[in-house]
Amino acid sequence: MKLVRFGDSGQEKPGLLDGNGRIRDLSGVVGDLSGDALGPESLKRLKEIDPGTLPLVEGSPRLGAPVGVVPKFLGIGLNYRDHAEETGMPIPEVPIVFAKASSCVSGPNDPVLAPAAFKRMDYEVELAVVIGSRAKNVAKENALDYVAGYCIGNDVSERSLQKGGPGEWIKAKSHDSFGPLGPWLVTTDEIADPQALDLSLDLNGERMQTGNTATMIFSVADLVSYISQYMTLVPGDVITTGTPPGVGMARNPRVFLKPGDEMVLRVQGLGEQHAKVVADG
Amino acid sequence: MKLVRFGDSGQEKPGLLDGNGRIRDLSGVVGDLSGDALGPESLKRLKEIDPGTLPLVEGSPRLGAPVGVVPKFLGIGLNYRDHAEETGMPIPEVPIVFAKASSCVSGPNDPVLAPAAFKRMDYEVELAVVIGSRAKNVAKENALDYVAGYCIGNDVSERSLQKGGPGEWIKAKSHDSFGPLGPWLVTTDEIADPQALDLSLDLNGERMQTGNTATMIFSVADLVSYISQYMTLVPGDVITTGTPPGVGMARNPRVFLKPGDEMVLRVQGLGEQHAKVVADG
Repeated sequence: MKLVRFGDSGQEKPGLLDGNGRIRDLSGVVGDLSGDALGPESLKRLKEIDPGTLPLVEGSPRLGAPVGVVPKFLGIGLNYRDHAEETGMPIPEVPIVFAKASSCVSGPNDPVLAPAAFKRMDYEVELAVVIGSRAKNVAKENALDYVAGYCIGNDVSERSLQKGGPGEWIKAKSHDSFGPLGPWLVTTDEIADPQALDLSLDLNGERMQTGNTATMIFSVADLVSYISQYMTLVPGDVITTGTPPGVGMARNPRVFLKPGDEMVLRVQGLGEQHAKVVADG
Repeated sequence: MKLVRFGDSGQEKPGLLDGNGRIRDLSGVVGDLSGDALGPESLKRLKEIDPGTLPLVEGSPRLGAPVGVVPKFLGIGLNYRDHAEETGMPIPEVPIVFAKASSCVSGPNDPVLAPAAFKRMDYEVELAVVIGSRAKNVAKENALDYVAGYCIGNDVSERSLQKGGPGEWIKAKSHDSFGPLGPWLVTTDEIADPQALDLSLDLNGERMQTGNTATMIFSVADLVSYISQYMTLVPGDVITTGTPPGVGMARNPRVFLKPGDEMVLRVQGLGEQHAKVVADG
């Protein structure tokens, strides 16, 4: 099942894609894709609906992030072996967990805002995990039971604020629009193995990042279990699980984002994001 | 105006204290103390109500955190000159901003949960600032206009996870119950100067922390302005602004929290928290 939120920013309605890729309106069935609506009982109920019985949404509305309320937006640093190597940082022994501000969540194709003071903005295509049920001290073996689904995430980062180790990354990672999510929340039944997904990012038509979630150091199950030892994960929490090689900061010469740049992000089975960088203010 | 949320966890109703310190039920007036209800128009409307016309709440119900939805829970490291000195860390040149998970927010007198694996749990009495209006790139001069009010915060921390600089503090700062807030959200009209408030914390009847917000390195206005350059602050966001001297980690001999310990936290004009440490699980 591919769930979406469509409409103007702040006024999105829930929907799902039918067999022809058209949006069907779910607002008569669920209030929003947040909280308990992301739990297994709710998703089972949505899956039993014949999409043809739902109102067809005409045209091509804007898509919002496919999760309405993101109580916690967590990122994982250096979680791809090949990316850790390109940065010259040691392979982490435990997951590096940092926070992005929930206020930076944006739609998959929304502009990415570039403040004038940010001279080293970078992109990071990632597999983002959406939590469906409360998870506290869960074992790796059943950690995926607490996942509602997956979407593409772009962990946009200002490298000048992201110094040294994992210190204080929240300032580098949280500017408005630095957290595009979507286009779809793809439920776990459609993703047989989250550790076998191709990822890529093109910048202005040129391939910059290529990877596969198979090279993650800590798997999705590892991460959900690990984080749940430190804080309770709740429905709607998003964990963006790290980026494969090819970030602008690690290229020679370095490449940083500037207004006018166009990004296309792809994760296997999760669709595409098309985002343009736009000056902020 | 002193606003509260009363009732069982997850089912709190909004209320306010009348002139006799009794709780009056606001649930017929506002849905919850979150989002736009924390904005200046809403607070003005609540202030115009004669408390005597509101239903009196009988007994002494549990108090929840006085903010219903905390989209971002931010902490500031080493923000008291005298505390920075006791830790042996350099005085920060810019605010050290870190995240606490919103899932750790708890009521002012709720138990603080101690996982068996946490051997270096510490307390931190703090002035917590509750945002009332969206703040992006705001100047220091009018930063306080975006504040709804203040409450006591206890920035409970597991020191073994809080290593070196401000790296990755989120794991140390976010266990369930590590963010007691309250008892009241005291609106800004009652706090003439947020930089002139005494703070203290007693542990098992012994005074451990004593301070005054006058020794903050970065004032509340500095912090709101500074953070708003990096991320948009939204209604309900909480900034807990750092702790004065006397934390357990900096004492000789060191003092760490253990089940059975009792804490009393006070901030001038903001009431008291009485919390007991209880084994988690």
